[in-house]
Amino acid sequence: MKLCRFGALNAERPGLIDDQGRLRDLSDVLDDIGPDQLSEDIFEMLNGIDVEALPIVSGSVRMGAPIAGISKYICIGLNYSDHAAESGLPIPTEPIIFLKATSAISGPNDPIIQPPHSSQLDWEVELGIVIGKTAQYVSEDDALDHVAGYCLMNDVSERTFQLQSTQWDKGKGCDSFGPIGPWMVTKDEIRDVHNLEMWLDVNGARMQTGNTQNMIFKIPEIVSYCSRYMTLRPGDVIATGTPPGVGMGIKPNPVWLHPGDTVQLGIQGLGQQTQQVVKHGS
Amino acid sequence: MKLCRFGALNAERPGLIDDQGRLRDLSDVLDDIGPDQLSEDIFEMLNGIDVEALPIVSGSVRMGAPIAGISKYICIGLNYSDHAAESGLPIPTEPIIFLKATSAISGPNDPIIQPPHSSQLDWEVELGIVIGKTAQYVSEDDALDHVAGYCLMNDVSERTFQLQSTQWDKGKGCDSFGPIGPWMVTKDEIRDVHNLEMWLDVNGARMQTGNTQNMIFKIPEIVSYCSRYMTLRPGDVIATGTPPGVGMGIKPNPVWLHPGDTVQLGIQGLGQQTQQVVKHGS
Repeated sequence: MKLCRFGALNAERPGLIDDQGRLRDLSDVLDDIGPDQLSEDIFEMLNGIDVEALPIVSGSVRMGAPIAGISKYICIGLNYSDHAAESGLPIPTEPIIFLKATSAISGPNDPIIQPPHSSQLDWEVELGIVIGKTAQYVSEDDALDHVAGYCLMNDVSERTFQLQSTQWDKGKGCDSFGPIGPWMVTKDEIRDVHNLEMWLDVNGARMQTGNTQNMIFKIPEIVSYCSRYMTLRPGDVIATGTPPGVGMGIKPNPVWLHPGDTVQLGIQGLGQQTQQVVKHGS
Repeated sequence: MKLCRFGALNAERPGLIDDQGRLRDLSDVLDDIGPDQLSEDIFEMLNGIDVEALPIVSGSVRMGAPIAGISKYICIGLNYSDHAAESGLPIPTEPIIFLKATSAISGPNDPIIQPPHSSQLDWEVELGIVIGKTAQYVSEDDALDHVAGYCLMNDVSERTFQLQSTQWDKGKGCDSFGPIGPWMVTKDEIRDVHNLEMWLDVNGARMQTGNTQNMIFKIPEIVSYCSRYMTLRPGDVIATGTPPGVGMGIKPNPVWLHPGDTVQLGIQGLGQQTQQVVKHGS
């Protein structure tokens, strides 16, 4: 099942992508798609409804982040060995946890807003985990019981902000730096989450090519690990790291995003995103 | 005006501390104290009510965090020059921003829960800024227009978690690591926020003594700076750093908290907190 939210910012309605890829309105069935709607019970109910009877949403419509009320956006740093190498950093021996401000969250095709004092704007295609059930000190064996599904994320980063001090959060949390979507796919629909192709283009040129099989820490370990440091709540999301090919890593000179650039990215089964880079205030 | 929330966890009611220090119930006046209640309009309305007519809450009652629905808990690292020195770190030239997971937030006298794998549990008395109005690229001159008030915080930290990678968030965001309160005081009631005594005791022994006058970056600069990296929303809080005397900095050997220890802390005008350290699961 592919669940999404569509409509104007802060007025999104719940939706579902049907087998033909059509957007259908779930407003008569659910209030929203958020912490209260990510349970097995709700998914079971949704599996029982007649999808063909749901209204089709036609025409051009904005997609929002597919989950409302995200209370934590956790990121795992340097979780692809090749990306650690291109960043000139050692391969971590434990997951590196940092946080993205939730005010950064945006729809999958919303513009990336470049802050006025930004000069090193960069991209990171990532697979996101969506927590469905509260997780606190869960084992790796039980971890997937707490996962509702997966989504596509662009962990937009500003490298001067990120690396100005030792703490990365400042370069990760600017408004619009957290595109999520177009949908959240329930975990039952992904045959092998550790074998999904992922890619990212800038202005039509392929920059990142990867596969989730190259994650250093796999999803059960990530969920279990994070749950030992903070209670994971329904609707919390975890970005699981990016493969090689970020702008910062390009030799001999890094490549940065500028207003007017187009970023496109996708992960097999999780859909695609397209973002235009715009100046703040434009 | 001193605003607070009291009652059982997740069932807190809004309250007010009157001039005699008595807790009065605001439930008939406000739904809660959160993002929607931190505006000048609401404060004006509250200033007009007859406090003597509000019911007194008597007996022993749990105090909750004084603000509900906090979407971001921002921390400013190493903002007291003496604390930077005791940490063996250079004095920052710009504010260091990191984030505490909002799931860490707790009431001012709730226990500090030591995670099972923790060995270096530490304390940090801090002054917290409460945002009252959305702030995005605000100037230092305008910054205080976006501040609703101030509160007392203990930025509880686990140093092995914090320093295991370069990213501090993991050692700052465990459940119960964010006691806030007992109240939020509106900014009009604090004559000089940059001249408040602050202290912290462990088992009755004074560990931290400081004054907010020793902040490296002052409050208008902090609010203005943060607002250039992420939109600050009503109810967001910013912990402004800790004075010297944390356990990690004690010579010749650091001192850590253990189950059974009592932590007490206070800031002039912002009240006091008392926390017992307990083992996870006890």
